[in-house]
Amino acid sequence: MSRVQEYLRENQARFVGELTEYLRFPSISAGGGHARDMADCVNWLVRHCRGIGLHAEIRRTAGNPVVIARTALTRRQRKPHFLVYGHYDVQPPEPLDLWNSPPFEPRVVGKSLFARGASDNKGQHFAHLKAIEAYLKTGTPLPCDVTFIIEGEEEISSPSLAGFLRRHRKELKCEAVVISDSTLHALDQPTLAYGLRGVCGLEVTLHGPSHDVHSGVYGGSIENPAMALCQILAGLRDARGRITIPGFYADVVPLTRFERAQFAAEPFYPNDELRQLGARRYFGEAGYNPIEQRTARPTLEINGLTSGYQGKGGKTIVPAWARAKLTMRLVPNQHADRMVDLAIAHLKRICPDTVRIEFKREFGGDPYRISPRSQYVEAAAEALRIAFGKPPLLVREGGSIPIVNDLKRTLGADSLLVGLGLPDDNFHSPNEKFNLVAFSKGMLMSAWLWQKLSQLPTQ
Amino acid sequence: MSRVQEYLRENQARFVGELTEYLRFPSISAGGGHARDMADCVNWLVRHCRGIGLHAEIRRTAGNPVVIARTALTRRQRKPHFLVYGHYDVQPPEPLDLWNSPPFEPRVVGKSLFARGASDNKGQHFAHLKAIEAYLKTGTPLPCDVTFIIEGEEEISSPSLAGFLRRHRKELKCEAVVISDSTLHALDQPTLAYGLRGVCGLEVTLHGPSHDVHSGVYGGSIENPAMALCQILAGLRDARGRITIPGFYADVVPLTRFERAQFAAEPFYPNDELRQLGARRYFGEAGYNPIEQRTARPTLEINGLTSGYQGKGGKTIVPAWARAKLTMRLVPNQHADRMVDLAIAHLKRICPDTVRIEFKREFGGDPYRISPRSQYVEAAAEALRIAFGKPPLLVREGGSIPIVNDLKRTLGADSLLVGLGLPDDNFHSPNEKFNLVAFSKGMLMSAWLWQKLSQLPTQ
Repeated sequence: MSRVQEYLRENQARFVGELTEYLRFPSISAGGGHARDMADCVNWLVRHCRGIGLHAEIRRTAGNPVVIARTALTRRQRKPHFLVYGHYDVQPPEPLDLWNSPPFEPRVVGKSLFARGASDNKGQHFAHLKAIEAYLKTGTPLPCDVTFIIEGEEEISSPSLAGFLRRHRKELKCEAVVISDSTLHALDQPTLAYGLRGVCGLEVTLHGPSHDVHSGVYGGSIENPAMALCQILAGLRDARGRITIPGFYADVVPLTRFERAQFAAEPFYPNDELRQLGARRYFGEAGYNPIEQRTARPTLEINGLTSGYQGKGGKTIVPAWARAKLTMRLVPNQHADRMVDLAIAHLKRICPDTVRIEFKREFGGDPYRISPRSQYVEAAAEALRIAFGKPPLLVREGGSIPIVNDLKRTLGADSLLVGLGLPDDNFHSPNEKFNLVAFSKGMLMSAWLWQKLSQLPTQ
Repeated sequence: MSRVQEYLRENQARFVGELTEYLRFPSISAGGGHARDMADCVNWLVRHCRGIGLHAEIRRTAGNPVVIARTALTRRQRKPHFLVYGHYDVQPPEPLDLWNSPPFEPRVVGKSLFARGASDNKGQHFAHLKAIEAYLKTGTPLPCDVTFIIEGEEEISSPSLAGFLRRHRKELKCEAVVISDSTLHALDQPTLAYGLRGVCGLEVTLHGPSHDVHSGVYGGSIENPAMALCQILAGLRDARGRITIPGFYADVVPLTRFERAQFAAEPFYPNDELRQLGARRYFGEAGYNPIEQRTARPTLEINGLTSGYQGKGGKTIVPAWARAKLTMRLVPNQHADRMVDLAIAHLKRICPDTVRIEFKREFGGDPYRISPRSQYVEAAAEALRIAFGKPPLLVREGGSIPIVNDLKRTLGADSLLVGLGLPDDNFHSPNEKFNLVAFSKGMLMSAWLWQKLSQLPTQ
C-alpha cells in the first residue's frame, strides 16, 4: 500500500489537470439538447479509463450510453467483486449570470475547483478511478475485482439504468456497490450515509382561456389560471410546514429515539449555514429540527413557476395557462409512484372548475435505508477513518440516488455511500465546486476501501 | 360630403395596402429593445401624414417621439379645434408560436387584416387619417381644425405624454379629443364609451436563499420562495372573487340603478363568447354580472409568474426567488398610486419573515368617466349612427387609456371614445386583427364626426 499511497501523493497535480479536462464537457442530460457533448464526454472517459489500464467500453442504452470499466477482463470468481457507480452527466448550469466564471471552463481558486459537475459527480467518481490507477500503475495487487459503471442519465433520474442492470445482472453481480455522490460534513469529519430520501416529480399545468386575453377587456369576469395555480399550490402546505395532501405521511416510518439522538449529535452550525445559504432563518415541518426535516422527513417543493408575461415592463393579460414543476422528497416506506398518485388525486379534487388541469409525471425513485451496522458499512467506515483521520458520522442523506434501489433489487447489493462533496459545494447551483483536499483524501479512502472490503468473509 | 364619401369608397383597396405597410413595423415599446424599428415606424408615419396634406412633425420626448400632424399650420381660432389621439406603438407579440401567420407580416383573410397592432391601435387611428385625407384631397372644406397626436408609449403607459401635453398645452388646446382605441359591440352595433377603468401595475419578488439550492440537501428546512409567493398571492382573492386587500373597494362609487339597467341592455352572448375565449365558464366577483365585473368593478390580475427552472425536464432545486407581475384595474373614484400603496402595505403585512419582499411599481393610470349626456357625446353618437346605421350603445369600457385623464387635466378636454375594434380582435393576444368593414365604416364615421362636432356652439 505504500507504493499506492506514494503514487497518489506524487501525481496530484496531474490528476487535477485530468479532472479539469473531464469537466470541460457540458454533458447536460436534461432537455436532450447536448447529444454531441455527451458523446464527446463519453469518448474522453473511455479513453481515459483505458489509459489507466481498465477494460473500458461504451454500452448503448435507449438513452445516453453507460461506460463500463473493469479491472478484470473476465471474472473467475476468485476475488470479491465490487462496483463503483458514478455519473458523467451534469445539471443544467442556469442561471448563467450567477456564475463567477463560466461553468464549463474549470478554474482553481485556492483549494476549490469550480465547474458544473465538479462535485456532482465527475470529481467524486474520478477519485475512485485514480485510486485504481494507483494500484494498476504501481503493480500493486488489488485484493478484489472492481467494475466502474458510469451512467449519463442520473440528473434525469436514470431512465435507462434499471433495464441495463437487468440485462447485465450476471456480469455486474457483486458484493456491494460504492457510491460517492453525496457530501461529508467537513474535511475533518467524514460521513457515511445509511439512508437516502426518494424523489418524485410532477408538472402541473392549469389551462384558462385558449390564448392570453386582454386584462382590461375580460379581467374580472373569467378565471386567471395563474391565480388558480397559486391558490391550489398555496393549500398544499399549512402554517406548520406540513404537507396537506391526504395520506402524505401515512407510510412514513417514525424516527426512532436512536436515530433522533444520532441526528442531534451531528455537527450543525446554523449561523454559518444560513449565511452561506443566504436564507433568513430555517423553516420546515414543526416538531422536527432542520437536519431531520431535510434528511428523514418528506417534503414537497415548487421547483419552478411559469405563466404569462415574464419580460421587462408589463403586459396586461389574463394568461392562457400557468405551470408549476413540483418534486416530493420521500422517506421509508413511501413509494414514488403512489405519492404522485396521491398528489394528482388531491390536486384534481381541489382544482376549481374554472380551469382545466393537466399533469405530467416526471422522474421518480424510492427512498433507501440500510442497516448502519452491516459489516460493509463498518469496513467502509474504517477506510474513511484512515483517510480522514476520524471515524465517520453515520447519517441519513436528504438527497436521492434512485439507482440504489435498482442496484439492490437487481443485483441484491447494498450501496455504501461515501460522499466526498462539501456542504458548500453548490450541487445543482451556480458556482459548483469540488474541494481538492476532499479529492485527495477521497483517493486515499478509495485505495484503503478495497483492502478493507476484501478482508470480509464473502457473504 | 358626397365627394368625401365617394373618395373614401373608391380608395379602400389602396388604404388597406397603406395600413399593411404601417403594420410591418415591429414598433414594440415594452422592453426598449426596438429603438430602430420605432424610428423607422415614426419616419414612415410622418411621411405618410405629409403625403395626405397634413403638417406633420416628429417631436422628441424623453422617451419615444410623438407625431403631431395638423390640418392648419397655425391656428387662428376661427374654427373649433379637435384632437385625434392614437398610438403607433404595439404590444409585444409573444407567444409567437400561437400566431397563425407572423405578427409583423400582415395578412388579409376574408374581411380581417391580421397583424400585431392592426386594431390596437394603428388601424383605428389610420381610419381617422384617411377621413381627413378625403377632405384634403377632394378640396372639401373642413369645418374644424384637427390635430393628430400619435404617441409611441401607450402600451407602456405613456410615461412621456403628460409632460408633452403640459409643454404644448397652448398649441393643443381643443374642444374635445377623439379616441378610437377600444371596441364596438358588433359591426351593426356601434358603441360609445363614457367610462374607462384605470390600471396600475406592480412587480413583486420574494427572495429566499441567495442562489438556487439543491432540494435534496436543503428542501424541507428552508423556505421555498415560490411556495411563499403562491401563499401570499392566493390570499389576495377570496372564494367569492373579492379582492381581500384592506380598503380595496373603499373608494368605489356604487353602480346606479340606471347604469345597471344599461349594462343589462347590452347585447351579450355568453356561449359564443366563452367559445371564442376558450374559457370553461365565467368567474368573477359575486353579486355582479360579467359585463359589470369587467367594466365597472375593480379587479386584480396576475399577468405573469416566474420562478426557478422552466425548461424541459426537471431540476430539483429550491429556487432563489419567485416573481409575480400584477395589475389592478380601477374604477371611479379609485386612484392608481393609492391602490398600489394599499397593495404594497398589505403584501408586506402578509409576507412571511422567511423571505425578503421587493416591489417595483409599474405604470399607472386613473379611471375615467364623463357624462353620457354631454353635447359632444351626442354629436359623436350621431356620426356613429350615420356610419353604422344604428344609434350607439353607451357603455363603460373595462380597458384603460390613462392618457384621457391627462388630456382632461391639462387641456380641459373630454375624450370621445369611439372604438372600432371588434370584441374578437385579439387585442394584446396572438392573431390580433382589424376588421376591414369596421375600418371602412370608421372612416365614414370620422368624416361625419367633424361635421357634427363643428355644428355645436363653442363651449
